[in-house]
Amino acid sequence: MKFTVNRVSFLKQLNTVNVAIGPKSPTPAFLNFKLEMNDDGLTVLGSDNEITIKNFLPVSKDDKTFIENYTEGSTLISAKYLLEIVRRLDGEKVTIEVIDDVIVQISDNKAHFQLNSMRSEEYPDLDLAVSGEKVVLSDAEFKKIVSQTTFAASTRDVRPILTAVNFKAGSGLAEFVATDSYRLSKKTSHISNSNTFEVNIPVKALNEVSKLLENDQITLHIAGNKVVFEFGGTMFYSRLINGDFPKTSRMIPSNYPYVLKVNANAFVNAMQRVSLLAVERERIVKLSLDEAGVEISSKSEQIGSANEKVELFEYEGGRLDISFNVDYVTDAIKAAQSEDVILSFAGEMNAFRVTSPEDESIIQIVTPVRSYY
Amino acid sequence: MKFTVNRVSFLKQLNTVNVAIGPKSPTPAFLNFKLEMNDDGLTVLGSDNEITIKNFLPVSKDDKTFIENYTEGSTLISAKYLLEIVRRLDGEKVTIEVIDDVIVQISDNKAHFQLNSMRSEEYPDLDLAVSGEKVVLSDAEFKKIVSQTTFAASTRDVRPILTAVNFKAGSGLAEFVATDSYRLSKKTSHISNSNTFEVNIPVKALNEVSKLLENDQITLHIAGNKVVFEFGGTMFYSRLINGDFPKTSRMIPSNYPYVLKVNANAFVNAMQRVSLLAVERERIVKLSLDEAGVEISSKSEQIGSANEKVELFEYEGGRLDISFNVDYVTDAIKAAQSEDVILSFAGEMNAFRVTSPEDESIIQIVTPVRSYY
Repeated sequence: MKFTVNRVSFLKQLNTVNVAIGPKSPTPAFLNFKLEMNDDGLTVLGSDNEITIKNFLPVSKDDKTFIENYTEGSTLISAKYLLEIVRRLDGEKVTIEVIDDVIVQISDNKAHFQLNSMRSEEYPDLDLAVSGEKVVLSDAEFKKIVSQTTFAASTRDVRPILTAVNFKAGSGLAEFVATDSYRLSKKTSHISNSNTFEVNIPVKALNEVSKLLENDQITLHIAGNKVVFEFGGTMFYSRLINGDFPKTSRMIPSNYPYVLKVNANAFVNAMQRVSLLAVERERIVKLSLDEAGVEISSKSEQIGSANEKVELFEYEGGRLDISFNVDYVTDAIKAAQSEDVILSFAGEMNAFRVTSPEDESIIQIVTPVRSYY
Repeated sequence: MKFTVNRVSFLKQLNTVNVAIGPKSPTPAFLNFKLEMNDDGLTVLGSDNEITIKNFLPVSKDDKTFIENYTEGSTLISAKYLLEIVRRLDGEKVTIEVIDDVIVQISDNKAHFQLNSMRSEEYPDLDLAVSGEKVVLSDAEFKKIVSQTTFAASTRDVRPILTAVNFKAGSGLAEFVATDSYRLSKKTSHISNSNTFEVNIPVKALNEVSKLLENDQITLHIAGNKVVFEFGGTMFYSRLINGDFPKTSRMIPSNYPYVLKVNANAFVNAMQRVSLLAVERERIVKLSLDEAGVEISSKSEQIGSANEKVELFEYEGGRLDISFNVDYVTDAIKAAQSEDVILSFAGEMNAFRVTSPEDESIIQIVTPVRSYY
């Protein structure tokens, strides 16, 4: 195998695929890129056995040549070293050549590297078949779904199902739900696929795909226990998480007698200020609602107390005191992505809702904590 | 005590003094700012008992009023919380008021904080007298001295004297030397003080002062076991390090038969590239010198090998192979702060010198390592 490739295009390919490669692996082959050169172009593949990424660079496209002087073949090269070398080289082009079966030469005609390598046959067999339900989304819609839901998932592995976003499709509607059992985020989207199915997609995969996606539409292929995200020249494979996602509808109250509309930024800043002294108490603040005025306060025996009147509000409902974790409410308000937000309360010890007046597709639920003062 | 202060000026004062305050202290009072308001202005003081910083903000200066509505007095307030509160407040002005002896109120008329505080009498007595030898330097010269020497000091506490920069003055010349015993940096400066004295200033103090210094000249006051840096409205006190600084002159060869002149950037980039594979061997590369060509190479049994010819060089001397730590030589070349650098070698196992063709005031010495291939 030999080829000379445009360095910037190759570096982008390696950076994309490197997302799948971990710093350590019980299978040494997984610390390598698998490079495969044929008459169509160069395929780079990487995996940690949970996520697999395959990226394809054509020999040429639209009159632009990316790869020259190639002979077909394949090899495994240390991801860490190949990426660092290609990043640091100065030249416009890089030449990769398998010298014998276990040495690869990398050069830009100025600096020369010889890396110990492995035969591509030593790479584990991976299931790279693509089939099943197809869902096509614009890059903007996909990124919005990810940014509005994944933060609410659990970051702990105690209940693996809560580290996924539940994706439920039916009659052309898709519902994406994430919860860590203390808060919940639900996003609704229209999709072209009208079949009924339900899967749990790992948050990690969604976040990584969202970061890699740029100005491409994206196709999700969902089958068995696997999802494949197809975008640009990239195929991103992730396992799904098995198990039943909790029935979240009963977390959501149906009736909200207390409704507060506030400017999102002003409210978040006031909460953040007041919570400065609330470090010890797990960043809990108290919101005191009354049609005459709305106040946020916090108190700590050791440090002191803080309070601030909320400006720019509309409130309907009786007097209500409710305490909550500032970060949960801040996340929920930011996910609403609107200038004003509506906080709807059912009572002091009931979950409450954060919504946008402009966008009904996104609903956030937060559970309060007991107030001690 | 009560005062209303311009928030941005007060925040700058707190940020400056906070440099002296550690995250923990066996003396709880040292976790506080000491605030002292009198008719001249507001003094903020902080200390960790090794470094003490005092900053003064006048009531007004050049027709600009910084402080209003004040009554004299003093108090101790938690550095961590006061700094965070003043940073996050929105208002242009902040009012600080001691409510009773142990509660301070902080407010911008929108958000209100009540912090538990301590009486200023509970602050330890510190020696804040200023006397001794005076050395005045421009901010540019001081920053240059610091950036060209401190990196070469030891970062380990095994030999505390090596965590200092040795400052030797005599006949109007000052010599600043730092060494970790593997490399050495020596900077010479002309100073107005013609007395003879020698002290060891902790690198930490020099680096922090250099970061705080902006467009002011700086005066060093050196007496006993203490140095005081005076600049802007700030007095920065540091202990000196006792003990004899090693005699470094015998580390420096007197005769260099091999002399290489190279472009600093090109040489550093080539070294960094070639050393990519040298991680295991403590970032050692080999430099092969010959009048026909200069090459940098590295080799690792497990990973592979690398080599690159150096461009843009002038070399005088016979054939020489010498191996060294890439980071030491990179630091030395960067400290020379010039487009070209001169590397002068005495032999394969002798310390070598890095100098600038334009600036004789700075000399770097690096010891080589034995070459294994």
